Amino acid sequence: MAIEMDFWFTETVNDIVGNTIKVKERIFSGRSEYQEIEIVDTYHYGRTLILEGSVQLTEKDEFTYHEMISHIPLFTHPNPERVLVIGGGDGGTIREVMKHPTVIQAQLAEIDPLVIEKSKQFLPFVSCELENPRVEIIIQDGMQYVKHHKGIFDVVLIDSPDPVGPAVGLYQKEFFEDVHKALKDDGIMVGQSESPFFDQTIVRPLYTILKPLFPIRKMYLAPVPSYPSGLWSFVFCSKRYDPILHYRLEDFHRLNLKTRYYNEAIHQAAFALPNFIQELIA
Amino acid sequence: MAIEMDFWFTETVNDIVGNTIKVKERIFSGRSEYQEIEIVDTYHYGRTLILEGSVQLTEKDEFTYHEMISHIPLFTHPNPERVLVIGGGDGGTIREVMKHPTVIQAQLAEIDPLVIEKSKQFLPFVSCELENPRVEIIIQDGMQYVKHHKGIFDVVLIDSPDPVGPAVGLYQKEFFEDVHKALKDDGIMVGQSESPFFDQTIVRPLYTILKPLFPIRKMYLAPVPSYPSGLWSFVFCSKRYDPILHYRLEDFHRLNLKTRYYNEAIHQAAFALPNFIQELIA
Repeated sequence: MAIEMDFWFTETVNDIVGNTIKVKERIFSGRSEYQEIEIVDTYHYGRTLILEGSVQLTEKDEFTYHEMISHIPLFTHPNPERVLVIGGGDGGTIREVMKHPTVIQAQLAEIDPLVIEKSKQFLPFVSCELENPRVEIIIQDGMQYVKHHKGIFDVVLIDSPDPVGPAVGLYQKEFFEDVHKALKDDGIMVGQSESPFFDQTIVRPLYTILKPLFPIRKMYLAPVPSYPSGLWSFVFCSKRYDPILHYRLEDFHRLNLKTRYYNEAIHQAAFALPNFIQELIA
Repeated sequence: MAIEMDFWFTETVNDIVGNTIKVKERIFSGRSEYQEIEIVDTYHYGRTLILEGSVQLTEKDEFTYHEMISHIPLFTHPNPERVLVIGGGDGGTIREVMKHPTVIQAQLAEIDPLVIEKSKQFLPFVSCELENPRVEIIIQDGMQYVKHHKGIFDVVLIDSPDPVGPAVGLYQKEFFEDVHKALKDDGIMVGQSESPFFDQTIVRPLYTILKPLFPIRKMYLAPVPSYPSGLWSFVFCSKRYDPILHYRLEDFHRLNLKTRYYNEAIHQAAFALPNFIQELIA
């Protein structure tokens, strides 16, 4: 009989500040070719996916992140048919993308098949749409995948982990140039861009890289309690459509999506930036 | 020579989830008649005030809370002259209130003189306006103070700690009835109302209590990374003025306040509520 006491999992930033959560049970623990993967059950957040010691999602609060990375671009583009998700092997972003009937095909380019396998096995609340026939799973480095596809995607979503380990190249100029080329002439790219409170050294250079590539570049925000600082940022880059001017409000109402965070008011409010963030990305 | 190693201060909610910060130095530690007071210097957040084991403010992120509890009501009321702050002996809220030239007098009703004394001594970044001649400090239980004043305040700000210890009565019906009576016929009350993610059992009954008292009741939100969940809520209660319809935008522009979080877009966006919060307070 295995005897395992409750323990606390603590994720720190720069070894000076962090979040801590009490773990009820270790569900899976292993190392893939690319990273340490842990799935635990926690008292507060429910099931939690941890990659390289960093919380990726929890059962209780994943809805804010996944709804916001998906619905902001998909209700801005007038007719998103072809969507590419880079990273996000857990399936949470795909689950939200599948709520859009315009989407003919969503491709998921995930480098690590073990993340997909274990999410399907232990995290059904996010992986539930990975078997949808409109979804194609491609086990490949997303950076390589975009290099070989030109002008075919309406929307590219970069659902990447922190810029360490296999994801370090996902914050570099060459990658964003490749994403730009992989998009159609009116395409939209959205990526998660870390905490505007804790990760300012990542956020600032990102906008410098993106400036010559996309005429429309905007940050938007959403709370994610299980992430460091509790506030998360996304970068919205677009060749033509503006998230406020071109918002498909009528379609949002018509579809009557079941969302827990996203709504019409949030779509607009998420782009309201505090002064200190405006200065950061100016 | 005192030898004290670095240590981590951890604040948990329900003993299952929490924030942790690395402490550089203990600045003050003592017990007043009312509560445990600790002031520490931390690597990430700078100086930090902790009451009853709960972080009240940090040097690095106090601006979001103090700007939002103050400027939302003070730029809604057309001519706020008399302001009462209940709690908030650190002075952070008073500092923001003093940025408004309409304010003839701001009273601070703080039960615990040791909080004021130690804030003046060790937290000058928040206590800096406590000596302003427009400020009157009243060392008294705010609950008693409002009982004995009728119809005299334009704005009452409830800058209370968590509803434990001396603050437990600050979330009860009788107190809000007294605040309502202490306000003028067009008065506004704003109070901090805990985390909409972590403290739902506090948030929900609050709106039930407030419903028969104030015709206008709205929640608004701001991120505070050092507080549990990182997202904080405020309750805006008003006898006449609506925070969006009556927003004094021109005055905000004319005053050209030095704020780091608050601005025109944030004033509006803070009232955009996610679906799960709308359901909580419906």
